[in-house]
Amino acid sequence: MKRLLDPDSLRALARGCAVLGAGGGGDTYLSLLQALQATEDFGQVRLVDLDELPDEALVMPCGGIGAPTVSIEKIENGNEGERLREQLEYLTGRPVAALMAGEIGGGNGVLPVTWCARMGLPLADADGMGRAFPEVPQVTMQLAGISPSPAVMTDERGNLIVFRTISGDWMERLERAAAVEFGGAACSTEFTLTAAQARGATVRDSVSLAIRIGEAVIGATGSPVAALVAEIGAFRLVTGKISDVERRTTSGFVRGSVVVEGLGEDAGRLIRLELQNENLVALERGRVLASVPDLITVVDSETADAIATERIRYGQRVTVIAFPCDPVWRTERGIAVTGPRSFGYDFDYQPVEELAGARA
Amino acid sequence: MKRLLDPDSLRALARGCAVLGAGGGGDTYLSLLQALQATEDFGQVRLVDLDELPDEALVMPCGGIGAPTVSIEKIENGNEGERLREQLEYLTGRPVAALMAGEIGGGNGVLPVTWCARMGLPLADADGMGRAFPEVPQVTMQLAGISPSPAVMTDERGNLIVFRTISGDWMERLERAAAVEFGGAACSTEFTLTAAQARGATVRDSVSLAIRIGEAVIGATGSPVAALVAEIGAFRLVTGKISDVERRTTSGFVRGSVVVEGLGEDAGRLIRLELQNENLVALERGRVLASVPDLITVVDSETADAIATERIRYGQRVTVIAFPCDPVWRTERGIAVTGPRSFGYDFDYQPVEELAGARA
Repeated sequence: MKRLLDPDSLRALARGCAVLGAGGGGDTYLSLLQALQATEDFGQVRLVDLDELPDEALVMPCGGIGAPTVSIEKIENGNEGERLREQLEYLTGRPVAALMAGEIGGGNGVLPVTWCARMGLPLADADGMGRAFPEVPQVTMQLAGISPSPAVMTDERGNLIVFRTISGDWMERLERAAAVEFGGAACSTEFTLTAAQARGATVRDSVSLAIRIGEAVIGATGSPVAALVAEIGAFRLVTGKISDVERRTTSGFVRGSVVVEGLGEDAGRLIRLELQNENLVALERGRVLASVPDLITVVDSETADAIATERIRYGQRVTVIAFPCDPVWRTERGIAVTGPRSFGYDFDYQPVEELAGARA
Repeated sequence: MKRLLDPDSLRALARGCAVLGAGGGGDTYLSLLQALQATEDFGQVRLVDLDELPDEALVMPCGGIGAPTVSIEKIENGNEGERLREQLEYLTGRPVAALMAGEIGGGNGVLPVTWCARMGLPLADADGMGRAFPEVPQVTMQLAGISPSPAVMTDERGNLIVFRTISGDWMERLERAAAVEFGGAACSTEFTLTAAQARGATVRDSVSLAIRIGEAVIGATGSPVAALVAEIGAFRLVTGKISDVERRTTSGFVRGSVVVEGLGEDAGRLIRLELQNENLVALERGRVLASVPDLITVVDSETADAIATERIRYGQRVTVIAFPCDPVWRTERGIAVTGPRSFGYDFDYQPVEELAGARA
């Protein structure tokens, strides 16, 4: 066991997950409250390394699916994780040994803690993205050739669906349609795998990373934003205020754009962020400052708290930072699945550090 | 065994199913061709009475789901039935003993013949409606308290979904959303039940009824329409031509309306049919001539061939007939599930024979 997730580490985890969410993955405020309550009620959760699990141990990647704008109002029942696990064990005929966040970013990085506590299961120190992405097949397991099937989805009412699809794209289509029908958000598990498979098919140590990011911000002696930037090796794109928000919940996603107007040394600059659950691209006068799969995160300029896309409001004083994604996303296959063209943009991916270097 | 479904009986079945479809249930032309080919390739299908099956024998209600306008262009792969059966046997741990049409109306009354032939299974002489209705829980099994779960849906590509819902209405919502995502049509099974349950929870002898209706029309010595009207005890609402068709495929249904302009002794009359896959109501100057759950069927005035809602065209010479539904739909619970108010109309159901009597 790496550690027990005590209340302080959960608070750090939530802050770190919010940063790694790149605006998405769902609100961390609610999922932190749920995790604190569940671990108080049922006991603290063990964080384990994938190397600690037997090769054949079943790992259940899981989380919420849908539009974060919905998730902050339509709250889980609490027993979704048990339903997903029960069905997965029935379908595979094997016990689930550990849960794993499908994406470490946002509330989805914290949600499995609640389910682990309720079920007495450990949480694997890994995830399928190293951040948050909007679509089901945008996970490292897809790149590694793990099947998304059987996937299980459930809602807070007790409805349950099992999907066996011919591809990850079909899984996205069918799960998204069901999430929309459930009211815009639901819970699911896809890409079930063994610990042996997970060791080479996930982003390792991402729970620990999120906790470390959170602790760096919480423990900052000077500017929390400066501490955050130093901890994750981020590039500051702009400091200013939110001057425009255009946001709509459609087809199971939050879509829209945000304009940040520079203040102080950035006065006169206008940075536009385009989003689909997550911040996808940062543009300045049509020039790309950063794009998926690299992470673009909007943080409060005072506290360095990451602000999710569904919480962005006019007038907020913010700093926009960008930082490199996990190397797996910079491979040819990774870019094909999560690069700008996969989201419909007509430009090639360039690493954020190269874009920053070109500006300097 | 009641009979073997030879080519002549299949041709009669298809004609009868079209009449019982009340405009819906899908095209019978394609499903007849499929059934003729499958029985030629794999052998004729046995039609069995539910009393012939052991009490615990598993009966699989099945058919297509979606918009008939789509089904005439997006054709089955052929192996959908095998996939549904295989998954249902896996989920229940028991063999499927017989297939049953979820609805006898339209192509859905014929489709199970193809699947039975391919799998060597008998077809039960019964169905869940005695006609066709557009929505999943509009079946006699729902009235009898049979669970719609587990339902299985598949498409021609090989995707497969299992639904376990808290109600028939949720089954409708989730299956419809999936059918839309599949392109507007798919195949499914719901309300699995034993032969013992089916004896009291289905419309009995409806395959035989459809064959008898078809044979009456095929064997008519005089007017086929007159023979049809006599065979089923129908009321002739109007004879004329189609003067207007407004039809759209939306949310997994065909919706719209059709205007029939009277000819001959009906000259000057305008009858409007409103439809959702099936013909729901027949109106004349705002007065209801017939409504769900009674059957309203448009037939070719010369041949008495029933014309499905997706095949209606301007200028067709037609006779609109209406006839009583199975008595189960006239109970309080039946009317609640399939009466005019269940489709959003603001009037109470009146039996077609009372409406006809009031006009006479």
